[in-house]
Amino acid sequence: MILSGRVVNLSRTRIHYGTDALQGFRKLIVSQEYRKSRVFILVDANTGKHCLPLLVEACPELDAASVFEIEGGEASKSLIAAGKIWGELLAAQADRHSILINLGGGVVSDLGGFVAAGLKRGIKYVNIPTSLMGMVDAAIGGKTGINMGKLKNQVGFFYSPIAVFLDPRFLKTLPSAHIRSGFAEVIKSALLGDPVLWRKLLRLGAENILRMDTSEKPWQDMIMKTLTFKNRIVCQDFREQKLRKILNFGHTIGHALESLSLGRDENILLHGDAVALGMIAESWLSHMKAGLSKAEAMEIISFLKAGYKPQADALKGFFKSSPASLDSIYDLLMHDKKNREGQITYTLIQAAGKPRINLDAGRKETAVSLEKIFE
Amino acid sequence: MILSGRVVNLSRTRIHYGTDALQGFRKLIVSQEYRKSRVFILVDANTGKHCLPLLVEACPELDAASVFEIEGGEASKSLIAAGKIWGELLAAQADRHSILINLGGGVVSDLGGFVAAGLKRGIKYVNIPTSLMGMVDAAIGGKTGINMGKLKNQVGFFYSPIAVFLDPRFLKTLPSAHIRSGFAEVIKSALLGDPVLWRKLLRLGAENILRMDTSEKPWQDMIMKTLTFKNRIVCQDFREQKLRKILNFGHTIGHALESLSLGRDENILLHGDAVALGMIAESWLSHMKAGLSKAEAMEIISFLKAGYKPQADALKGFFKSSPASLDSIYDLLMHDKKNREGQITYTLIQAAGKPRINLDAGRKETAVSLEKIFE
Repeated sequence: MILSGRVVNLSRTRIHYGTDALQGFRKLIVSQEYRKSRVFILVDANTGKHCLPLLVEACPELDAASVFEIEGGEASKSLIAAGKIWGELLAAQADRHSILINLGGGVVSDLGGFVAAGLKRGIKYVNIPTSLMGMVDAAIGGKTGINMGKLKNQVGFFYSPIAVFLDPRFLKTLPSAHIRSGFAEVIKSALLGDPVLWRKLLRLGAENILRMDTSEKPWQDMIMKTLTFKNRIVCQDFREQKLRKILNFGHTIGHALESLSLGRDENILLHGDAVALGMIAESWLSHMKAGLSKAEAMEIISFLKAGYKPQADALKGFFKSSPASLDSIYDLLMHDKKNREGQITYTLIQAAGKPRINLDAGRKETAVSLEKIFE
Repeated sequence: MILSGRVVNLSRTRIHYGTDALQGFRKLIVSQEYRKSRVFILVDANTGKHCLPLLVEACPELDAASVFEIEGGEASKSLIAAGKIWGELLAAQADRHSILINLGGGVVSDLGGFVAAGLKRGIKYVNIPTSLMGMVDAAIGGKTGINMGKLKNQVGFFYSPIAVFLDPRFLKTLPSAHIRSGFAEVIKSALLGDPVLWRKLLRLGAENILRMDTSEKPWQDMIMKTLTFKNRIVCQDFREQKLRKILNFGHTIGHALESLSLGRDENILLHGDAVALGMIAESWLSHMKAGLSKAEAMEIISFLKAGYKPQADALKGFFKSSPASLDSIYDLLMHDKKNREGQITYTLIQAAGKPRINLDAGRKETAVSLEKIFE
């Protein structure tokens, strides 16, 4: 006897961007559907101090909510941290109708989304990103995950928040390094899907953009375009069967560089820094493997170097002091989730606005492309 | 700015029952789609010894597959065990295209499904249940999970296997206690959706059925009907929004009884035993809260007692030796995943074939219903 089952599963995410976003959040919390649900809030030390008061001010109903605090940084994206929060939620009698609010950057939303996905086979959750990286990337798209040792996001789920509320006022509390980190995703998004924005970025120059205030119009414009692009791609291919893979541009090598710097005394690269340097290498790979013209590859590389020179220098210094690390990058690349049958699979670009997925490259070409970061 | 995303996610499960099921499994493994995928097999000590040789005989291609072995029993459904297997899979360079084969009973498929769901945000997996409980229930429906301490299945995901292969020959290796355990799900399924089968069970009597060989026609018929019923319900309501809740009949109290016996020196109740005793109590609750006639409630209770008398006696002895346990049942019931706002939510039956979901009962009615197990 052979049976065949078919399961349909719909999920919807509402995304609200603007200085009225927290009002939108309050409306959700007091709505007929959720006002009886228990609310739990996940923060890190920083957002617990600087962002939680703003949230409670906008939504006084949260005053009685339980708050769980994790330490900031990638080290908190661990199975141990997830197990601890699961235990705390169960001890606090969280039920299947409870809601988890992730207030923070990518670490908080990745870990909190993972916890929400697993608790009682899935409770609802809301992301309120407080970092630029969170707003333009991490909080949107339902990728949740934890790290296994040095390997980033090796365990996780595709599980969408019911809503994402983005209030640009949170960006004011951010140090400039975190603006620079989030900017990498803006650049990536422009290179993948918005050649007009990319030309505009080129005209302005990375250094000038990074000096501008995020409340100014060019930044607001970039943020909205980037998160809209991300949302559009994610809705078309939630489980990254095909189209969503384009978003990995810069991330294959970027993740390996980031893994390498994880767990060092001092984190030399933020996620976006690693992605920016990854895009330098992968732009050159794009020239070698995907038909990107040399002129355009060099234009991209120059732009990125102007924005991320100190980070490239720091990485170079790191490799000089620990030459074996260059080899270990290849080992790390072998753990990339896109790989198949031992080859490294990249997302590259043929031109600005023309991404190409599933292109394989070997160890030697990868090494050549890494050199471009240091030249 | 407000955006709204909508994500569609389809999953299909193929279910193959029969003595040719392992041939069907082999066809899948050597198929164009999967023959290049790395295969990993999860077993427990028992299935590694008794069932794996049969599987490799039917599918010699598995000879080179990596095998991970866990200890049998609920204690293996832990976050620590999951973390260990994730680490081992990553060390063995499992990639997103790898397949995990869960060869065993409910513990193996619950844990293995959980591991598959989380690895690299989801790899494919296949269930090959070797226990009756696995065949008629655990392996079908995509509920995966682990226990948190004594609390059963508090962390998990809905994540479907690509296929389930059920070979009744595996049942020959089972001790009779495990046949008795799986039989509880057959009874439940008949009570919920198949009054004709239920009358037949009543005619035969629980003791007679449990004495029959599982290779005989009545058993084959019961197994097919039960797994077909489960599959039909699951396909209509994968995420247990509504209809699927009917499958929880007997499980609310059953899970609490089972949790109570978890971690004792000696497991006094198998999962199905706990469900059978749970159905005794919940049949009486059905009489009190859902309009089940007293005569039909008593008929069900008598049938169950004939099959599970020694287990009811063991539980009674346990409560006598540890009177505080009766109180702790209520605390355990408060962790049930179906609860909302502090009430215990049950699935009950109005008559055989007429399930009713989302019926609340309080502490006192629950206590009265528990008494029925011991009368």
